[in-house]
Amino acid sequence: MLAAGKVYIVGAGPGDPELLTLKAARLIRDADIIVYDRLVAPEIVRLAHPRAERIYVGKARSTHLVPQAEINALLVGLAGAGKRVVRLKGGDPFVFGRGGEEAEALARAGVAFEVVPGVTAACGAAEYAGIPLTHRDFAHACVFAAGCLRDGAAGLDWATLARPKQTVVIYMGLAALEEICRQLVAHGLDRDTPAALVESATTANQRVIAGTLANLPELVRAAAAKPPTLVIIGEVVRLRERLAWFEPMPGFEAEEVRAASGSRAPIFASLPCP
Amino acid sequence: MLAAGKVYIVGAGPGDPELLTLKAARLIRDADIIVYDRLVAPEIVRLAHPRAERIYVGKARSTHLVPQAEINALLVGLAGAGKRVVRLKGGDPFVFGRGGEEAEALARAGVAFEVVPGVTAACGAAEYAGIPLTHRDFAHACVFAAGCLRDGAAGLDWATLARPKQTVVIYMGLAALEEICRQLVAHGLDRDTPAALVESATTANQRVIAGTLANLPELVRAAAAKPPTLVIIGEVVRLRERLAWFEPMPGFEAEEVRAASGSRAPIFASLPCP
Repeated sequence: MLAAGKVYIVGAGPGDPELLTLKAARLIRDADIIVYDRLVAPEIVRLAHPRAERIYVGKARSTHLVPQAEINALLVGLAGAGKRVVRLKGGDPFVFGRGGEEAEALARAGVAFEVVPGVTAACGAAEYAGIPLTHRDFAHACVFAAGCLRDGAAGLDWATLARPKQTVVIYMGLAALEEICRQLVAHGLDRDTPAALVESATTANQRVIAGTLANLPELVRAAAAKPPTLVIIGEVVRLRERLAWFEPMPGFEAEEVRAASGSRAPIFASLPCP
Repeated sequence: MLAAGKVYIVGAGPGDPELLTLKAARLIRDADIIVYDRLVAPEIVRLAHPRAERIYVGKARSTHLVPQAEINALLVGLAGAGKRVVRLKGGDPFVFGRGGEEAEALARAGVAFEVVPGVTAACGAAEYAGIPLTHRDFAHACVFAAGCLRDGAAGLDWATLARPKQTVVIYMGLAALEEICRQLVAHGLDRDTPAALVESATTANQRVIAGTLANLPELVRAAAAKPPTLVIIGEVVRLRERLAWFEPMPGFEAEEVRAASGSRAPIFASLPCP
Protein backbone atom coordinates (compact mmCIF):
# COMPACT_ATOMS: atom_id res chain seq x y z
CA MET A 1 0.00 0.00 0.00
CA LEU A 2 1.14 3.54 -0.76
CA ALA A 3 2.00 5.94 2.01
CA ALA A 4 -0.72 8.59 2.25
CA GLY A 5 0.08 11.71 0.23
CA LYS A 6 -0.40 15.22 1.43
CA VAL A 7 -0.84 18.62 -0.22
CA TYR A 8 0.64 21.83 1.19
CA ILE A 9 -1.07 24.93 -0.22
CA VAL A 10 1.72 27.46 0.20
CA GLY A 11 1.95 31.22 -0.28
CA ALA A 12 5.11 32.23 -2.15
CA GLY A 13 4.87 35.91 -1.24
CA PRO A 14 4.61 39.06 -3.37
CA GLY A 15 7.56 38.78 -5.76
CA ASP A 16 10.92 39.26 -4.05
CA PRO A 17 11.94 35.62 -3.54
CA GLU A 18 13.50 36.49 -0.19
CA LEU A 19 10.02 37.30 1.13
CA LEU A 20 9.32 33.56 1.19
CA THR A 21 8.73 32.17 4.68
CA LEU A 22 11.10 29.70 6.31
CA LYS A 23 8.26 27.21 6.50
CA ALA A 24 7.54 27.50 2.79
CA ALA A 25 11.24 27.04 2.00
CA ARG A 26 11.40 23.89 4.10
CA LEU A 27 8.27 22.39 2.54
CA ILE A 28 9.48 23.13 -0.98
CA ARG A 29 12.82 21.44 -0.35
CA ASP A 30 11.05 18.37 1.05
CA ALA A 31 8.41 18.07 -1.67
CA ASP A 32 8.14 15.32 -4.27
CA ILE A 33 6.21 17.58 -6.61
CA ILE A 34 5.80 21.36 -7.00
CA VAL A 35 2.64 22.64 -8.68
CA TYR A 36 3.13 26.36 -9.29
CA ASP A 37 1.56 29.51 -10.70
CA ARG A 38 2.84 32.18 -13.04
CA LEU A 39 3.63 34.75 -10.33
CA VAL A 40 5.98 32.50 -8.36
CA ALA A 41 9.62 33.62 -8.70
CA PRO A 42 11.90 31.11 -10.48
CA GLU A 43 14.40 31.33 -7.57
CA ILE A 44 11.69 29.86 -5.35
CA VAL A 45 10.84 26.98 -7.66
CA ARG A 46 14.57 26.21 -7.92
CA LEU A 47 14.63 25.50 -4.17
CA ALA A 48 12.99 22.16 -4.89
CA HIS A 49 15.02 18.97 -4.91
CA PRO A 50 16.58 18.36 -8.34
CA ARG A 51 14.57 15.16 -8.66
CA ALA A 52 11.30 16.81 -7.63
CA GLU A 53 8.76 17.09 -10.43
CA ARG A 54 7.72 20.64 -11.37
CA ILE A 55 4.27 21.23 -12.85
CA TYR A 56 3.39 24.67 -14.18
CA VAL A 57 -0.29 25.61 -14.06
CA GLY A 58 0.17 29.37 -14.33
CA LYS A 59 -2.63 31.72 -14.98
CA ALA A 60 -2.36 34.96 -16.84
CA ARG A 61 -5.23 37.40 -16.30
CA SER A 62 -8.28 36.25 -18.27
CA THR A 63 -6.38 33.31 -19.77
CA HIS A 64 -6.45 30.54 -17.25
CA LEU A 65 -3.91 28.15 -18.68
CA VAL A 66 -5.29 25.31 -16.62
CA PRO A 67 -8.90 25.55 -15.41
CA GLN A 68 -9.34 25.55 -11.64
CA ALA A 69 -11.27 22.25 -11.68
CA GLU A 70 -8.34 20.56 -13.42
CA ILE A 71 -5.88 21.93 -10.89
CA ASN A 72 -8.06 20.59 -8.09
CA ALA A 73 -8.23 17.16 -9.75
CA LEU A 74 -4.47 17.17 -10.32
CA LEU A 75 -3.76 17.84 -6.64
CA VAL A 76 -6.16 15.13 -5.51
CA GLY A 77 -4.64 12.67 -7.97
CA LEU A 78 -1.04 13.35 -6.97
CA ALA A 79 -1.82 13.03 -3.27
CA GLY A 80 -3.75 9.83 -4.03
CA ALA A 81 -0.57 8.46 -5.60
CA GLY A 82 1.18 8.97 -2.26
CA LYS A 83 3.07 12.13 -3.21
CA ARG A 84 4.09 14.98 -0.98
CA VAL A 85 2.87 17.94 -3.02
CA VAL A 86 3.56 21.65 -2.59
CA ARG A 87 0.97 23.80 -4.34
CA LEU A 88 2.78 27.16 -4.68
CA LYS A 89 0.72 30.30 -5.17
CA GLY A 90 1.76 33.93 -5.44
CA GLY A 91 1.09 36.07 -2.35
CA ASP A 92 -1.16 34.50 0.28
CA PRO A 93 -3.34 31.49 -0.67
CA PHE A 94 -6.43 32.78 1.19
CA VAL A 95 -6.39 36.34 -0.24
CA PHE A 96 -7.66 36.21 -3.84
CA GLY A 97 -5.64 33.04 -4.32
CA ARG A 98 -8.45 30.47 -4.60
CA GLY A 99 -6.63 28.52 -1.93
CA GLY A 100 -9.99 28.01 -0.26
CA GLU A 101 -11.41 26.31 -3.33
CA GLU A 102 -8.42 23.99 -3.60
CA ALA A 103 -8.60 23.16 0.09
CA GLU A 104 -12.32 22.37 -0.28
CA ALA A 105 -11.59 19.99 -3.15
CA LEU A 106 -8.92 18.24 -1.08
CA ALA A 107 -11.20 18.00 1.95
CA ARG A 108 -14.01 16.56 -0.18
CA ALA A 109 -11.65 13.93 -1.56
CA GLY A 110 -10.37 13.04 1.91
CA VAL A 111 -6.82 14.20 1.13
CA ALA A 112 -4.67 15.50 4.00
CA PHE A 113 -3.61 19.11 3.53
CA GLU A 114 -2.12 22.16 5.21
CA VAL A 115 -2.29 25.82 4.23
CA VAL A 116 0.75 28.06 4.73
CA PRO A 117 0.21 31.82 4.72
CA GLY A 118 2.46 34.09 2.72
CA VAL A 119 3.11 37.83 2.54
CA THR A 120 0.12 39.03 0.56
CA ALA A 121 0.75 41.32 -2.43
CA ALA A 122 -0.88 44.30 -0.71
CA CYS A 123 1.64 44.20 2.13
CA GLY A 124 4.59 43.66 -0.18
CA ALA A 125 3.57 46.53 -2.44
CA ALA A 126 2.84 48.84 0.49
CA GLU A 127 6.19 48.36 2.20
CA TYR A 128 8.28 48.50 -0.98
CA ALA A 129 6.38 51.56 -2.23
CA GLY A 130 6.58 53.39 1.11
CA ILE A 131 2.83 53.47 1.72
CA PRO A 132 1.59 52.35 5.17
CA LEU A 133 -1.77 50.59 4.79
CA THR A 134 -2.98 51.86 8.14
CA HIS A 135 -1.94 54.99 10.03
CA ARG A 136 -3.43 56.48 13.17
CA ASP A 137 -3.86 59.87 11.49
CA PHE A 138 -5.13 58.82 8.07
CA ALA A 139 -6.52 55.28 7.83
CA HIS A 140 -8.21 53.26 10.56
CA ALA A 141 -8.98 50.36 8.25
CA CYS A 142 -7.90 48.84 4.97
CA VAL A 143 -9.97 46.99 2.41
CA PHE A 144 -8.72 44.48 -0.11
CA ALA A 145 -10.85 43.96 -3.23
CA ALA A 146 -10.20 42.46 -6.66
CA GLY A 147 -10.55 44.28 -9.97
CA CYS A 148 -11.28 41.19 -11.99
CA LEU A 149 -13.99 39.10 -10.46
CA ARG A 150 -16.20 36.52 -12.15
CA ASP A 151 -18.50 39.43 -13.01
CA GLY A 152 -15.78 42.02 -13.64
CA ALA A 153 -15.23 45.13 -11.55
CA ALA A 154 -18.99 45.61 -11.73
CA GLY A 155 -19.24 43.25 -8.76
CA LEU A 156 -17.47 45.71 -6.44
CA ASP A 157 -19.35 47.37 -3.60
CA TRP A 158 -18.51 50.97 -4.51
CA ALA A 159 -20.35 52.60 -1.62
CA THR A 160 -18.25 50.60 0.85
CA LEU A 161 -15.00 51.32 -0.96
CA ALA A 162 -15.66 55.05 -1.30
CA ARG A 163 -15.36 55.91 2.39
CA PRO A 164 -13.00 58.29 4.14
CA LYS A 165 -10.36 57.24 6.68
CA GLN A 166 -9.56 53.92 5.06
CA THR A 167 -7.08 52.55 2.54
CA VAL A 168 -8.41 50.63 -0.46
CA VAL A 169 -6.22 48.08 -2.21
CA ILE A 170 -7.40 46.65 -5.51
CA TYR A 171 -5.70 43.45 -6.63
CA MET A 172 -5.44 43.00 -10.42
CA GLY A 173 -6.94 46.44 -10.98
CA LEU A 174 -5.14 47.50 -14.17
CA ALA A 175 -7.76 46.61 -16.78
CA ALA A 176 -10.60 48.17 -14.78
CA LEU A 177 -8.58 51.14 -13.47
CA GLU A 178 -10.59 53.80 -15.27
CA GLU A 179 -13.88 52.39 -14.03
CA ILE A 180 -12.51 52.00 -10.50
CA CYS A 181 -11.40 55.65 -10.29
CA ARG A 182 -14.61 56.94 -11.88
CA GLN A 183 -16.89 54.90 -9.61
CA LEU A 184 -15.04 55.88 -6.43
CA VAL A 185 -15.47 59.55 -7.32
CA ALA A 186 -19.11 58.98 -8.32
CA HIS A 187 -19.70 57.39 -4.90
CA GLY A 188 -18.24 60.28 -2.95
CA LEU A 189 -14.45 60.19 -2.80
CA ASP A 190 -12.72 63.45 -3.65
CA ARG A 191 -11.18 63.59 -7.14
CA ASP A 192 -7.91 64.61 -5.47
CA THR A 193 -7.73 61.49 -3.29
CA PRO A 194 -4.18 60.17 -3.67
CA ALA A 195 -3.91 56.91 -5.59
CA ALA A 196 -1.01 54.82 -6.86
CA LEU A 197 -0.52 51.84 -9.10
CA VAL A 198 2.34 49.51 -8.18
CA GLU A 199 3.65 47.35 -11.02
CA SER A 200 5.71 44.19 -10.34
CA ALA A 201 5.77 45.00 -6.63
CA THR A 202 8.89 44.10 -4.60
CA THR A 203 10.88 43.02 -7.68
CA ALA A 204 13.80 44.65 -9.48
CA ASN A 205 11.25 45.88 -12.03
CA GLN A 206 8.91 47.57 -9.55
CA ARG A 207 7.39 50.83 -10.78
CA VAL A 208 5.12 53.08 -8.76
CA ILE A 209 2.86 55.47 -10.62
CA ALA A 210 1.32 57.90 -8.17
CA GLY A 211 -1.34 60.53 -8.72
CA THR A 212 -4.96 61.08 -7.81
CA LEU A 213 -8.25 59.41 -8.65
CA ALA A 214 -8.61 62.11 -11.32
CA ASN A 215 -5.35 61.58 -13.17
CA LEU A 216 -4.09 58.07 -12.33
CA PRO A 217 -5.68 56.34 -15.37
CA GLU A 218 -4.03 58.87 -17.69
CA LEU A 219 -0.62 58.53 -15.95
CA VAL A 220 -0.84 54.75 -16.07
CA ARG A 221 -1.72 54.76 -19.77
CA ALA A 222 1.22 57.06 -20.50
CA ALA A 223 3.54 54.76 -18.56
CA ALA A 224 2.21 51.68 -20.40
CA ALA A 225 1.97 49.69 -17.16
CA LYS A 226 1.67 45.92 -17.36
CA PRO A 227 0.40 43.26 -14.92
CA PRO A 228 0.95 42.22 -12.22
CA THR A 229 -0.30 45.42 -10.61
CA LEU A 230 -1.93 46.58 -7.43
CA VAL A 231 -3.80 49.84 -6.90
CA ILE A 232 -3.64 51.63 -3.53
CA ILE A 233 -6.09 54.45 -2.81
CA GLY A 234 -6.19 56.76 0.19
CA GLU A 235 -4.48 59.57 2.07
CA VAL A 236 -1.63 57.25 3.08
CA VAL A 237 -0.37 57.30 -0.53
CA ARG A 238 0.94 60.81 0.19
CA LEU A 239 3.38 59.41 2.76
CA ARG A 240 5.28 57.79 -0.08
CA GLU A 241 7.00 61.10 -0.81
CA ARG A 242 8.86 60.74 2.47
CA LEU A 243 8.81 56.98 3.03
CA ALA A 244 9.87 55.49 -0.32
CA TRP A 245 13.14 53.63 0.31
CA PHE A 246 13.26 50.84 -2.26
CA GLU A 247 15.33 51.47 -5.38
CA PRO A 248 14.43 48.97 -8.06
CA MET A 249 17.12 48.00 -10.57
CA PRO A 250 15.29 47.10 -13.76
CA GLY A 251 16.90 44.35 -15.78
CA PHE A 252 18.84 42.95 -12.85
CA GLU A 253 18.20 39.64 -11.13
CA ALA A 254 17.14 39.67 -7.47
CA GLU A 255 20.55 38.22 -6.62
CA GLU A 256 22.46 41.09 -8.21
CA VAL A 257 20.23 43.73 -6.63
CA ARG A 258 20.88 42.28 -3.21
CA ALA A 259 24.63 42.15 -3.76
CA ALA A 260 24.65 45.77 -4.94
CA SER A 261 22.67 46.90 -1.90
CA GLY A 262 25.41 45.61 0.38
CA SER A 263 23.68 42.49 1.58
CA ARG A 264 26.24 40.45 3.49
CA ALA A 265 24.80 37.13 2.34
CA PRO A 266 23.22 36.30 -0.99
CA ILE A 267 19.68 35.04 -0.93
CA PHE A 268 19.17 31.45 0.10
CA ALA A 269 22.88 31.13 0.93
CA SER A 270 21.80 29.72 4.25
CA LEU A 271 19.69 27.00 2.69
CA PRO A 272 21.73 23.87 2.03
CA CYS A 273 21.27 22.35 -1.41
CA PRO A 274 19.20 19.20 -1.28
CA MET B 1 33.62 59.40 11.56
CA LEU B 2 31.13 56.65 12.24
CA ALA B 3 29.76 54.53 9.42
CA ALA B 4 26.16 55.53 8.77
CA GLY B 5 23.66 53.42 10.69
CA LYS B 6 20.49 52.01 9.27
CA VAL B 7 17.17 50.82 10.66
CA TYR B 8 15.25 47.86 9.23
CA ILE B 9 11.60 47.89 10.28
CA VAL B 10 10.82 44.19 9.99
CA GLY B 11 7.61 42.16 10.26
CA ALA B 12 8.10 39.04 12.38
CA GLY B 13 4.89 37.36 11.24
CA PRO B 14 1.81 36.17 13.14
CA GLY B 15 3.24 33.89 15.82
CA ASP B 16 4.65 30.63 14.43
CA PRO B 17 8.36 31.52 14.23
CA GLU B 18 8.70 29.53 11.03
CA LEU B 19 6.43 32.07 9.31
CA LEU B 20 9.33 34.53 9.39
CA THR B 21 10.60 35.52 5.94
CA LEU B 22 14.06 34.59 4.71
CA LYS B 23 14.86 38.29 4.39
CA ALA B 24 13.90 38.97 7.99
CA ALA B 25 16.02 36.04 9.18
CA ARG B 26 19.02 37.35 7.27
CA LEU B 27 18.65 40.90 8.60
CA ILE B 28 18.23 39.68 12.18
CA ARG B 29 21.41 37.59 11.98
CA ASP B 30 23.34 40.57 10.60
CA ALA B 31 22.04 43.17 13.07
CA ASP B 32 24.02 44.92 15.78
CA ILE B 33 20.88 45.60 17.78
CA ILE B 34 17.37 44.09 17.90
CA VAL B 35 14.55 46.31 19.19
CA TYR B 36 11.50 44.06 19.62
CA ASP B 37 7.86 43.95 20.68
CA ARG B 38 5.93 41.64 22.96
CA LEU B 39 4.38 39.54 20.20
CA VAL B 40 7.66 38.50 18.62
CA ALA B 41 8.44 34.82 19.25
CA PRO B 42 11.56 34.17 21.39
CA GLU B 43 12.88 31.74 18.75
CA ILE B 44 13.05 34.69 16.35
CA VAL B 45 14.90 37.00 18.73
CA ARG B 46 17.36 34.14 19.39
CA LEU B 47 18.38 34.23 15.71
CA ALA B 48 20.41 37.35 16.46
CA HIS B 49 24.18 37.19 16.88
CA PRO B 50 25.12 36.31 20.48
CA ARG B 51 26.89 39.65 20.78
CA ALA B 52 23.95 41.62 19.36
CA GLU B 53 22.17 43.84 21.85
CA ARG B 54 18.49 43.04 22.47
CA ILE B 55 16.14 45.82 23.57
CA TYR B 56 12.60 44.96 24.60
CA VAL B 57 9.99 47.69 24.06
CA GLY B 58 6.93 45.43 24.11
CA LYS B 59 3.45 46.72 24.33
CA ALA B 60 0.58 44.99 26.02
CA ARG B 61 -2.89 46.20 25.06
CA SER B 62 -3.59 49.59 26.68
CA THR B 63 -0.28 49.50 28.58
CA HIS B 64 2.36 50.78 26.25
CA LEU B 65 5.52 49.84 28.12
CA VAL B 66 7.54 52.31 26.11
CA PRO B 67 5.69 55.26 24.53
CA GLN B 68 5.86 55.42 20.75
CA ALA B 69 7.77 58.72 20.79
CA GLU B 70 10.49 57.14 22.92
CA ILE B 71 10.77 54.17 20.57
CA ASN B 72 11.14 56.57 17.64
CA ALA B 73 13.86 58.52 19.47
CA LEU B 74 15.62 55.27 20.42
CA LEU B 75 15.76 54.11 16.80
CA VAL B 76 17.05 57.47 15.60
CA GLY B 77 19.70 57.51 18.32
CA LEU B 78 20.95 53.99 17.65
CA ALA B 79 21.24 54.61 13.92
CA GLY B 80 22.98 57.91 14.67
CA ALA B 81 25.57 55.93 16.62
CA GLY B 82 26.31 53.96 13.45
CA LYS B 83 24.41 50.82 14.40
CA ARG B 84 22.68 48.38 12.12
CA VAL B 85 19.29 48.10 13.86
CA VAL B 86 16.46 45.63 13.29
CA ARG B 87 13.14 46.91 14.63
CA LEU B 88 11.11 43.70 14.97
CA LYS B 89 7.32 43.98 15.05
CA GLY B 90 4.64 41.26 15.21
CA GLY B 91 2.79 40.61 11.96
CA ASP B 92 3.32 43.20 9.21
CA PRO B 93 4.74 46.63 10.12
CA PHE B 94 2.31 48.56 7.89
CA VAL B 95 -0.90 46.86 9.10
CA PHE B 96 -1.78 48.23 12.56
CA GLY B 97 1.91 48.07 13.44
CA ARG B 98 2.74 51.79 13.56
CA GLY B 99 5.59 51.04 11.20
CA GLY B 100 4.56 54.09 9.24
CA GLU B 101 5.03 56.36 12.25
CA GLU B 102 8.47 54.92 12.95
CA ALA B 103 9.48 55.29 9.31
CA GLU B 104 8.30 58.92 9.36
CA ALA B 105 10.44 59.63 12.42
CA LEU B 106 13.47 58.07 10.73
CA ALA B 107 12.86 59.98 7.50
CA ARG B 108 12.52 63.26 9.42
CA ALA B 109 15.82 62.59 11.17
CA GLY B 110 17.56 61.71 7.91
CA VAL B 111 18.20 58.12 8.98
CA ALA B 112 18.42 55.44 6.26
CA PHE B 113 15.76 52.76 6.63
CA GLU B 114 14.01 49.86 4.93
CA VAL B 115 10.67 48.24 5.68
CA VAL B 116 10.28 44.49 5.35
CA PRO B 117 6.74 43.09 5.09
CA GLY B 118 5.66 40.12 7.18
CA VAL B 119 2.73 37.73 7.21
CA THR B 120 0.02 39.83 8.80
CA ALA B 121 -1.95 38.33 11.70
CA ALA B 122 -5.16 38.16 9.65
CA CYS B 123 -3.56 35.87 7.09
CA GLY B 124 -1.87 33.72 9.71
CA ALA B 125 -5.09 33.30 11.68
CA ALA B 126 -7.14 32.63 8.56
CA GLU B 127 -4.93 29.85 7.24
CA TYR B 128 -4.34 28.15 10.60
CA ALA B 129 -8.05 28.36 11.47
CA GLY B 130 -9.20 27.07 8.06
CA ILE B 131 -11.04 30.27 7.07
CA PRO B 132 -10.33 31.68 3.58
CA LEU B 133 -10.50 35.50 3.74
CA THR B 134 -11.86 35.72 0.21
CA HIS B 135 -13.86 33.16 -1.75
CA ARG B 136 -15.57 33.53 -5.11
CA ASP B 137 -18.87 32.32 -3.68
CA PHE B 138 -18.92 34.15 -0.34
CA ALA B 139 -16.56 37.12 -0.04
CA HIS B 140 -15.36 39.43 -2.81
CA ALA B 141 -13.46 41.67 -0.42
CA CYS B 142 -11.94 41.67 3.04
CA VAL B 143 -11.60 44.54 5.48
CA PHE B 144 -9.07 44.84 8.28
CA ALA B 145 -9.97 47.12 11.18
CA ALA B 146 -8.70 47.50 14.74
CA GLY B 147 -10.80 47.09 17.89
CA CYS B 148 -8.66 49.37 19.99
CA LEU B 149 -8.01 52.68 18.31
CA ARG B 150 -7.06 55.99 19.90
CA ASP B 151 -10.78 56.60 20.34
CA GLY B 152 -11.75 52.98 21.12
CA ALA B 153 -13.97 50.82 18.94
CA ALA B 154 -16.25 53.85 18.69
CA GLY B 155 -14.03 55.05 15.85
CA LEU B 156 -15.06 52.17 13.59
CA ASP B 157 -17.13 52.82 10.48
CA TRP B 158 -19.92 50.36 11.27
CA ALA B 159 -21.93 50.98 8.11
CA THR B 160 -18.93 50.00 5.99
CA LEU B 161 -18.14 46.94 8.07
CA ALA B 162 -21.75 45.68 8.12
CA ARG B 163 -21.98 44.79 4.43
CA PRO B 164 -22.72 41.45 2.80
CA LYS B 165 -20.26 39.51 0.61
CA GLN B 166 -17.14 40.57 2.48
CA THR B 167 -15.01 39.26 5.32
CA VAL B 168 -14.28 41.54 8.27
CA VAL B 169 -11.18 41.00 10.38
CA ILE B 170 -10.84 42.93 13.64
CA TYR B 171 -7.36 43.11 15.11
CA MET B 172 -7.23 43.33 18.91
CA GLY B 173 -11.01 42.93 19.12
CA LEU B 174 -11.36 41.07 22.40
CA ALA B 175 -12.13 43.93 24.79
CA ALA B 176 -14.67 45.49 22.42
CA LEU B 177 -16.13 42.20 21.16
CA GLU B 178 -19.59 42.72 22.58
CA GLU B 179 -19.86 46.20 21.10
CA ILE B 180 -18.50 45.00 17.76
CA CYS B 181 -21.09 42.23 17.45
CA ARG B 182 -23.94 44.46 18.62
CA GLN B 183 -23.06 47.30 16.26
CA LEU B 184 -22.68 45.04 13.24
CA VAL B 185 -26.17 43.65 13.85
CA ALA B 186 -27.56 47.15 14.51
CA HIS B 187 -26.12 48.24 11.16
CA GLY B 188 -27.70 45.44 9.19
CA LEU B 189 -25.76 42.17 9.43
CA ASP B 190 -27.82 39.10 10.26
CA ARG B 191 -27.55 37.91 13.85
CA ASP B 192 -26.67 34.48 12.48
CA THR B 193 -23.67 35.74 10.52
CA PRO B 194 -20.82 33.34 11.32
CA ALA B 195 -18.05 34.83 13.46
CA ALA B 196 -14.96 33.42 15.13
CA LEU B 197 -12.36 34.60 17.58
CA VAL B 198 -8.84 33.22 17.10
CA GLU B 199 -6.61 33.32 20.17
CA SER B 200 -2.79 33.07 19.88
CA ALA B 201 -3.10 32.40 16.16
CA THR B 202 -0.59 30.02 14.51
CA THR B 203 1.01 29.01 17.82
CA ALA B 204 0.85 25.79 19.81
CA ASN B 205 -1.72 27.51 22.01
CA GLN B 206 -4.07 28.58 19.23
CA ARG B 207 -7.77 28.34 20.10
CA VAL B 208 -10.64 29.08 17.73
CA ILE B 209 -14.00 29.96 19.22
CA ALA B 210 -16.62 29.95 16.49
CA GLY B 211 -20.24 30.99 16.62
CA THR B 212 -22.40 33.80 15.31
CA LEU B 213 -22.65 37.53 15.91
CA ALA B 214 -25.44 36.68 18.37
CA ASN B 215 -23.57 34.21 20.55
CA LEU B 216 -19.84 34.80 20.07
CA PRO B 217 -19.40 37.21 23.01
CA GLU B 218 -21.02 34.65 25.35
CA LEU B 219 -18.89 31.78 23.98
CA VAL B 220 -15.72 33.85 24.30
CA ARG B 221 -16.53 34.81 27.86
CA ALA B 222 -17.18 31.18 28.75
CA ALA B 223 -13.83 30.19 27.21
CA ALA B 224 -12.00 32.96 29.08
CA ALA B 225 -10.07 33.98 25.97
CA LYS B 226 -6.98 36.13 26.36
CA PRO B 227 -5.04 38.40 23.96
CA PRO B 228 -3.62 38.28 21.41
CA THR B 229 -6.83 37.67 19.48
CA LEU B 230 -8.31 38.33 16.10
CA VAL B 231 -12.01 38.30 15.19
CA ILE B 232 -13.14 37.08 11.75
CA ILE B 233 -16.71 37.77 10.63
CA GLY B 234 -18.46 36.55 7.49
CA GLU B 235 -19.87 33.56 5.64
CA VAL B 236 -16.36 32.18 5.06
CA VAL B 237 -16.15 31.28 8.76
CA ARG B 238 -18.48 28.35 7.98
CA LEU B 239 -15.82 26.78 5.75
CA ARG B 240 -13.77 26.08 8.84
CA GLU B 241 -15.89 22.99 9.55
CA ARG B 242 -14.33 21.37 6.50
CA LEU B 243 -11.02 23.25 6.17
CA ALA B 244 -9.56 23.27 9.68
CA TRP B 245 -6.29 21.32 9.49
CA PHE B 246 -4.06 22.76 12.23
CA GLU B 247 -3.89 20.81 15.48
CA PRO B 248 -2.42 22.99 18.21
CA MET B 249 -0.51 21.28 21.00
CA PRO B 250 -0.93 23.50 24.06
CA GLY B 251 2.05 23.55 26.36
CA PHE B 252 4.50 22.42 23.71
CA GLU B 253 7.23 24.53 22.12
CA ALA B 254 7.04 25.23 18.39
CA GLU B 255 10.05 22.95 17.97
CA GLU B 256 8.34 19.94 19.56
CA VAL B 257 5.12 20.47 17.62
CA ARG B 258 7.05 20.46 14.38
CA ALA B 259 8.93 17.29 15.31
CA ALA B 260 5.69 15.55 16.25
CA SER B 261 4.05 16.55 12.98
CA GLY B 262 6.72 14.67 11.05
CA SER B 263 8.69 17.65 9.87
CA ARG B 264 11.90 16.31 8.35
CA ALA B 265 13.94 19.30 9.52
CA PRO B 266 13.60 21.27 12.75
CA ILE B 267 12.94 24.97 12.44
CA PHE B 268 15.90 27.13 11.55
CA ALA B 269 18.06 24.03 11.09
CA SER B 270 19.08 25.47 7.77
CA LEU B 271 20.24 28.75 9.28
CA PRO B 272 23.89 28.59 10.30
CA CYS B 273 24.63 29.94 13.76
CA PRO B 274 26.35 33.30 13.65
